[in-house]
Amino acid sequence: MAGTVRFGISIDNKLLESFDQLIENKGYMNRSEAIRDLIRASLVELKWEFGEEETVGTVTLVYDHHVRDLSEKLTEQQHENHDKVISTLHVHLDPHNCLEVLVVRGKARDVKKIADELIRVKGVKHGKLVMTTTGEELH
Amino acid sequence: MAGTVRFGISIDNKLLESFDQLIENKGYMNRSEAIRDLIRASLVELKWEFGEEETVGTVTLVYDHHVRDLSEKLTEQQHENHDKVISTLHVHLDPHNCLEVLVVRGKARDVKKIADELIRVKGVKHGKLVMTTTGEELH
Amino acid sequence: MAGTVRFGISIDNKLLESFDQLIENKGYMNRSEAIRDLIRASLVELKWEFGEEETVGTVTLVYDHHVRDLSEKLTEQQHENHDKVISTLHVHLDPHNCLEVLVVRGKARDVKKIADELIRVKGVKHGKLVMTTTGEELH
Amino acid sequence: MAGTVRFGISIDNKLLESFDQLIENKGYMNRSEAIRDLIRASLVELKWEFGEEETVGTVTLVYDHHVRDLSEKLTEQQHENHDKVISTLHVHLDPHNCLEVLVVRGKARDVKKIADELIRVKGVKHGKLVMTTTGEELH
Repeated sequence: MAGTVRFGISIDNKLLESFDQLIENKGYMNRSEAIRDLIRASLVELKWEFGEEETVGTVTLVYDHHVRDLSEKLTEQQHENHDKVISTLHVHLDPHNCLEVLVVRGKARDVKKIADELIRVKGVKHGKLVMTTTGEELH
Repeated sequence: MAGTVRFGISIDNKLLESFDQLIENKGYMNRSEAIRDLIRASLVELKWEFGEEETVGTVTLVYDHHVRDLSEKLTEQQHENHDKVISTLHVHLDPHNCLEVLVVRGKARDVKKIADELIRVKGVKHGKLVMTTTGEELH
Repeated sequence: MAGTVRFGISIDNKLLESFDQLIENKGYMNRSEAIRDLIRASLVELKWEFGEEETVGTVTLVYDHHVRDLSEKLTEQQHENHDKVISTLHVHLDPHNCLEVLVVRGKARDVKKIADELIRVKGVKHGKLVMTTTGEELH
Repeated sequence: MAGTVRFGISIDNKLLESFDQLIENKGYMNRSEAIRDLIRASLVELKWEFGEEETVGTVTLVYDHHVRDLSEKLTEQQHENHDKVISTLHVHLDPHNCLEVLVVRGKARDVKKIADELIRVKGVKHGKLVMTTTGEELH
């Protein structure tokens, strides 16, 4: 049945402050409205098909390597997929922040899964998958 | 003062259902975690709207290196911006196709310009800029 | 004035024989070409003897990322020198072993120090610094 | 039969100037003596065995990408071995000079061959192979 429901979310104090600024900046009426828009945008991506075809993607991650066990967790997850993760470029942005770009090759659905697993790791500040192509059928 | 706060949001029933599917699909533990990631991503994007801010991006390119002068043109353009292009990871996909990922750091407007110039070079089959962050003010 | 000059060198018969084998083995066209490469390499090394000159090196590391705290220690040390470590390429060799290559730019003495500190970390199976050049005065 | 022979080599004017400085700096009596030492040092490396065992190496190259067809030639050679060249990290040192590090995996003899072919390309200012290990037998 359609209708409106309500639920609570917990969030870091400082992150909420920045978000409230963004809300004001963008002219939203309230947090609910802004979050509903973010949710809708994320659902668009879900519609993409990720199937059996061979593909290649890049995963960009930004994180603070001082978060406990974070770099070990990310390394471990990449190694579990060492046959698909071709290689990773690591740039040391400052004493705290790292940027990593992985090149991942495999079935579209596997590439997507590897990206999702990495991006949702606690401590990863921003993550993004670019699904590209092995170039074979493109001319 | 830093710490965790809690607030409620109201949302359409059906939209929440779809979002719960996405959460499960991506492997998040709960809604709060997923929404915090969406909020962080929206803050990253906001920074990119102001051209003057220091930021960092990755540019993914797929191309056939046999196209005449193509790899020379791409190398030349990257060198003209050698102070902003931190480094480039090159993967040889097959005898013809190359994948390159560049890490570019600078003002948002400059990073976008460098990406646009590379992506529109004739012979580049697919190109995509990921606008990310130096991670400095994200928590 | 730039241009090509010619000069003669005298050499032991047997030494030349061995060198001719090496030339063939490496696929050089002639002795001049091979000797020019040796001369350039010796000039690169000379620069490294003076600690103050701006130069660039690559550090190759192989290690087992399952050794406790190892990848965190290596990441930490690289970040402390984030202004000199341009970037790092990470390849996942198998479920256990990692290969990393760092590109480090700075005074020869600093680059050597960074390499030494990384290579002697407990758990690094093999490490090697290649002292190369920014290419500026080499012709 | 043992004995001394003499042969001529041709060399860029400026390269010879730098080499003469090095000779004076190191206290050699003449060019022949210095070159004989370089040749002897290069022969040491030839003695290494490069066989059938699976290994991994890194190849560091510094070159001026403005040398005609150079970057195309290097890309072409890497692609011919795309099943062995895992990936390449490219750093733009200045408007002219490039540094590339390749990670190459395969039989020791093949890795050596790929490195030799790249290093001897005309226009490569400095090149160096680091033969390392897949880490499997090292503990």
